[in-house]
Amino acid sequence: MYRSVITGTGSYIPAIIKKNSDFISCNFYSENNGRIDSPAAEIVEKFKKITGINERRYAPPEINASDMATYAARLAITDSGIDPESIDQIILAHNFGDVVSDSIQSDAVPSLASRVKHNLGIRNPSCIPYDILFGCPGWVQGIIQANIYFKAGAAKRCLVIGSETLSRVIDDHDRDSMLFSDGAGACILEYLDVTALDKGVIGFSNRSDTIEEVNYIDFGKSYLPGADEDTRFIKMKGRKVYEYAVQHVPKAMQQCLDNCGVSIHDLKKIFIHQANEKMDESIIKAFYCLYGIQQIPENIMPMSIHWLGNSSVATIPTLIYNTK
Amino acid sequence: MYRSVITGTGSYIPAIIKKNSDFISCNFYSENNGRIDSPAAEIVEKFKKITGINERRYAPPEINASDMATYAARLAITDSGIDPESIDQIILAHNFGDVVSDSIQSDAVPSLASRVKHNLGIRNPSCIPYDILFGCPGWVQGIIQANIYFKAGAAKRCLVIGSETLSRVIDDHDRDSMLFSDGAGACILEYLDVTALDKGVIGFSNRSDTIEEVNYIDFGKSYLPGADEDTRFIKMKGRKVYEYAVQHVPKAMQQCLDNCGVSIHDLKKIFIHQANEKMDESIIKAFYCLYGIQQIPENIMPMSIHWLGNSSVATIPTLIYNTK
Repeated sequence: MYRSVITGTGSYIPAIIKKNSDFISCNFYSENNGRIDSPAAEIVEKFKKITGINERRYAPPEINASDMATYAARLAITDSGIDPESIDQIILAHNFGDVVSDSIQSDAVPSLASRVKHNLGIRNPSCIPYDILFGCPGWVQGIIQANIYFKAGAAKRCLVIGSETLSRVIDDHDRDSMLFSDGAGACILEYLDVTALDKGVIGFSNRSDTIEEVNYIDFGKSYLPGADEDTRFIKMKGRKVYEYAVQHVPKAMQQCLDNCGVSIHDLKKIFIHQANEKMDESIIKAFYCLYGIQQIPENIMPMSIHWLGNSSVATIPTLIYNTK
Repeated sequence: MYRSVITGTGSYIPAIIKKNSDFISCNFYSENNGRIDSPAAEIVEKFKKITGINERRYAPPEINASDMATYAARLAITDSGIDPESIDQIILAHNFGDVVSDSIQSDAVPSLASRVKHNLGIRNPSCIPYDILFGCPGWVQGIIQANIYFKAGAAKRCLVIGSETLSRVIDDHDRDSMLFSDGAGACILEYLDVTALDKGVIGFSNRSDTIEEVNYIDFGKSYLPGADEDTRFIKMKGRKVYEYAVQHVPKAMQQCLDNCGVSIHDLKKIFIHQANEKMDESIIKAFYCLYGIQQIPENIMPMSIHWLGNSSVATIPTLIYNTK
């Protein structure tokens, strides 16, 4: 029996630490451009209470998303012990491409996956690099795609990467700027005979809602009154995202588990996107509740949000890398 | 026997016609910022001779790539007669996202495929939209991916779109600006029993080279001396791309044909990316030459470059749509 197995992981955690206290000098405005009058120290404290974030990481100016992706990829390749020339696909998830520090343009031509292939010096013309844009779950979607390639007999070994420099698309006048961070995570996924092993991808479930949800996270102008219309930043309707996630994610998790025929009691770890500690706790609670379980197993959900914030597509692979 | 079959096609060809004569007032510079002294009329004439391009289309200012994608998708859905709610995946290929007219930022959050799903009013949460970045062949790669989803049993019906507004990322001081245009093309791909039919996707072949080739097409500053470093445009090493394509594309075509076990004599049409008429003619000539054929069948290669220019990912689906 063949299954997709993660045989190597890697991550790039940028060295620059941005602490909550670094935001105390900020002037925050709300969505309707009204000045938020509470003292910044109070805003920051409240932010920490809800999200669990103490600090986050920013990439140094000379490092772009494709560079971070390359570092993470190198670690994953070394960890797996494979020859890079044997990689069939490089799937790189991001949402903003390479954003040069202090510029506002996204650059994804050539694709970031092509840049990683170049940086790794891979010459094999059958190694196909491409990027996917799928919001924060992009890396997970990359794993789903690689798994499907394997099942169709179209590939046997994939490098799946998530990399993002959110620090370069945040609005300094928006409290949500405190959520976001930079980073990259990668893994080698291989199609292996697991007959004698109890491992690998058993199944997946995904869900997309795009009616009123389509602009819950989008790109918009600064909250600063009179800001330039043509310079846009990542914008989030936090309350809406929270409500959506708590309502739908537990059911999607249940659907996945049931599709796979796995008992909830057999779960060893649950890796959840790190966007908000309170939200993740609510999701886990609701998920166990769907199975009539009130007591959540200890240490079931590794967390990195306290020191890494929300690094979008990099979050889950980095969490896996750090949990090993 | 099941195969992936295109059951509907659509295209959006923008109404604004930009003629070669519209470039006569341009001041062109070379890669090293030297002024090109030849009169613009002469440059334009020479350009036409090599590329075959007489005119190209630009999207009106209020229309973005995701809007064009939606128009093309609607036509493809109507053409196929399917219920949009039955679509399993929306795969949208682009390279620059939505670039609002007269701005320099790319916007792909939410993904353009999510915007199309929203615009089409699709409510089915199992319809998964995502974008792929794969250079000009992005739409073709989308077809390859959908085909692989089908073979793995992970989908049965996909909407595959290519959409790009290259007019918003061109450098007015670069002669290559004359190559590029805007447009969108789409198709519905379905997994159907073709036992009684002689149709559908038989196979594919792809190739990626990223050593010295990685920056043959990239994003760089204007050729205008003293131009802003932080405002970048699509840039192409035309001669290098030409040489690469003529050397490698015919062999990739041969590999595809041989993989599929199809005789060259059974080919009815060959759809080639429309980047340069002379280049496409050289490719076809070299391809037939690999099979010892000197005389190329008449009308084997539909062309749209004369009136549409190079619309990147939109080119092939638009060509298929217009050839029906």
